[in-house]
Amino acid sequence: MEYPIGYHYNFCPKFYLLNMTITEPELRVFTQNIFLAIGCNDEHARLAADVLIRSDMRGIDSHGVARLSGYVRLWDKKRINSKPNIKIVHQTPTTATVDGDAGLGLVVAPFAMQIAIEKADKYGSGWVAVRNSNHFGISAYHALMAVEQQMIGFAMTNASPLVAPTFSNERMLGTNPMCYAFPAGKYPPVVVDMATSAAANGKLEIAQRAGKPVPEGWIQDEHGNFTTDPHALKKGGSLLPLGSDKEHGSHKGFGLSATVDILSAVLSGANYGPWVPPFVSFLDPPNDPVGLGIGHFLGAMRVDGFRPVEEFKNHMDNWIGRFKAAKTMNAGQSVIIPGEPEMEAEADRLKNGIPLVDAVVKDLNELANRFGIGKL
Amino acid sequence: MEYPIGYHYNFCPKFYLLNMTITEPELRVFTQNIFLAIGCNDEHARLAADVLIRSDMRGIDSHGVARLSGYVRLWDKKRINSKPNIKIVHQTPTTATVDGDAGLGLVVAPFAMQIAIEKADKYGSGWVAVRNSNHFGISAYHALMAVEQQMIGFAMTNASPLVAPTFSNERMLGTNPMCYAFPAGKYPPVVVDMATSAAANGKLEIAQRAGKPVPEGWIQDEHGNFTTDPHALKKGGSLLPLGSDKEHGSHKGFGLSATVDILSAVLSGANYGPWVPPFVSFLDPPNDPVGLGIGHFLGAMRVDGFRPVEEFKNHMDNWIGRFKAAKTMNAGQSVIIPGEPEMEAEADRLKNGIPLVDAVVKDLNELANRFGIGKL
Repeated sequence: MEYPIGYHYNFCPKFYLLNMTITEPELRVFTQNIFLAIGCNDEHARLAADVLIRSDMRGIDSHGVARLSGYVRLWDKKRINSKPNIKIVHQTPTTATVDGDAGLGLVVAPFAMQIAIEKADKYGSGWVAVRNSNHFGISAYHALMAVEQQMIGFAMTNASPLVAPTFSNERMLGTNPMCYAFPAGKYPPVVVDMATSAAANGKLEIAQRAGKPVPEGWIQDEHGNFTTDPHALKKGGSLLPLGSDKEHGSHKGFGLSATVDILSAVLSGANYGPWVPPFVSFLDPPNDPVGLGIGHFLGAMRVDGFRPVEEFKNHMDNWIGRFKAAKTMNAGQSVIIPGEPEMEAEADRLKNGIPLVDAVVKDLNELANRFGIGKL
Repeated sequence: MEYPIGYHYNFCPKFYLLNMTITEPELRVFTQNIFLAIGCNDEHARLAADVLIRSDMRGIDSHGVARLSGYVRLWDKKRINSKPNIKIVHQTPTTATVDGDAGLGLVVAPFAMQIAIEKADKYGSGWVAVRNSNHFGISAYHALMAVEQQMIGFAMTNASPLVAPTFSNERMLGTNPMCYAFPAGKYPPVVVDMATSAAANGKLEIAQRAGKPVPEGWIQDEHGNFTTDPHALKKGGSLLPLGSDKEHGSHKGFGLSATVDILSAVLSGANYGPWVPPFVSFLDPPNDPVGLGIGHFLGAMRVDGFRPVEEFKNHMDNWIGRFKAAKTMNAGQSVIIPGEPEMEAEADRLKNGIPLVDAVVKDLNELANRFGIGKL
């Protein structure tokens, strides 16, 4: 299929030099070995690799194995604990707060989602706020765990501050993604998985590497003026909330991002706003933390808590079918159902393998060297 | 205070001719009398008036008594049932589906929210999907019911189709608002209450009356091209999702709107997408309904299901204080915390009364005439 350029914020662009393609099982074993090498137990290594590989399979290249060396660098700095004691610190029948013990978010978030699912199984819904965690990969992975159990899944996380609120030129919020996932019948699940900024950082990085200007409305310079310079972030600029400016509703993007921040961190006891620790190892976390690590918020609701599953799925299929059939301006471009491009990427990569760009292969092979693991 | 023009999508604009100001108790009694006149019982009339007046008090003039004659016209057409038998049709300990029996959403939604709160009180969280309802006023009213009980409140509703998905020029979705409300300590609650379109219909109506062009990115014409013509909707155009175009993330606004539609209607058994009945009485509902009436989705989570209330509130205050102190481009304009303008409007109108524009006073006095109630 032809992906509309820029449709998904971090879909691997065509202009990259792809220097190799690898099968899913090969990349999975390699990734597990790296996690084992930094001290993860078997179960954690398998799980962390599964989250990363799923991202690469779904075409979200910015959140897959491309991030592996970044996790290792944070482990080097002792900011990621590869042997976490993840535990519930507070709960009711349908709510809980989990402390991730500075573990990989790739491990902590599925643990928390499993609790949400178990609570939902018993009482109809389950909600888990997580503190003391790290980057959790793609939100969709966690939300889809619920979908497999005939539940509606929710996942969100706060993130390093890169986004300025409306009227501000200070980086106060992360790109704070939110994900809602709904099971369907004959169609794949509907998966809304989105950064609450106008454009995610991954999209900006693509423009940086390509040396291309970005559209107005993605970023502002240090003075708060729109700029098309993809390097503006490095010069004190900031990303803009979804809506881009006040006139087009950036206060709504700010509101959504604030919602993610509050549910993920104020509720759980993690760091929020400008106190969220940076994802990159070369920047130190603030020395006046207001909580522990970064925060997530995960939830599950049983579909049959509201109506019989088959009825719901039939109407989901009807909803999807009707939206796919909506009139469009361009005969060659129908409405894209949320989650559809990722599903198509998954089918394509299952068949044709996962393309990896030069820089990522180099990065991964350096890790292989360091840990004495076979190269890609 | 000076409201930033266009900050809130439907704040009463300064250029209106205000021909009277009325106190809150006067307008409340008048409104209750209209609801009694169409056959509501005392409790329902009080409640429906409370929702509308709260909207006027909060400065959301488009959702207050300005809509009263519209509700009456729908009652005339037997599309609103003033004596509904509202009931739970499906439930688990923490989830429920409510059938509103074609009642006023102003009455049905608080009924459903009360159920969510009772479930949350017992089990930590409560979630209610509603079908067979009508327009429910401002989302914030319902979400704030939870905040009063030291809970986090959620409220959303689907609405008559006016918005086209990304790539489409067909009206498939309503402005589908979502609201998240969080209790704070010394500060007022944080209330994110937003249409998931770039601009709400009320904002467009203001431009229509003023004969002014609207910014590019709010609407498109029938061919799917951006237009600044505020009358484009009447000529087959459509509103655009938050993000405005694909490049600026309109697929995210579409995804959020889809989420509201699915939770409110596919889950509850209401009409969804283009099948949602129009709010105006002169347009008939589709003759091939896929469900009953319009749908809402309401939820409540106990703060102390995650951490002690005082701890949460202290951190909310810290969050709010930090965001209010964020650097801004303009010394006179600080970051606006979601919900702050509405709180300030409420304080102002409590002191100075509620301003009503010519057209609304005329409309209300015609109702008074019809039902033999004292004029304003």
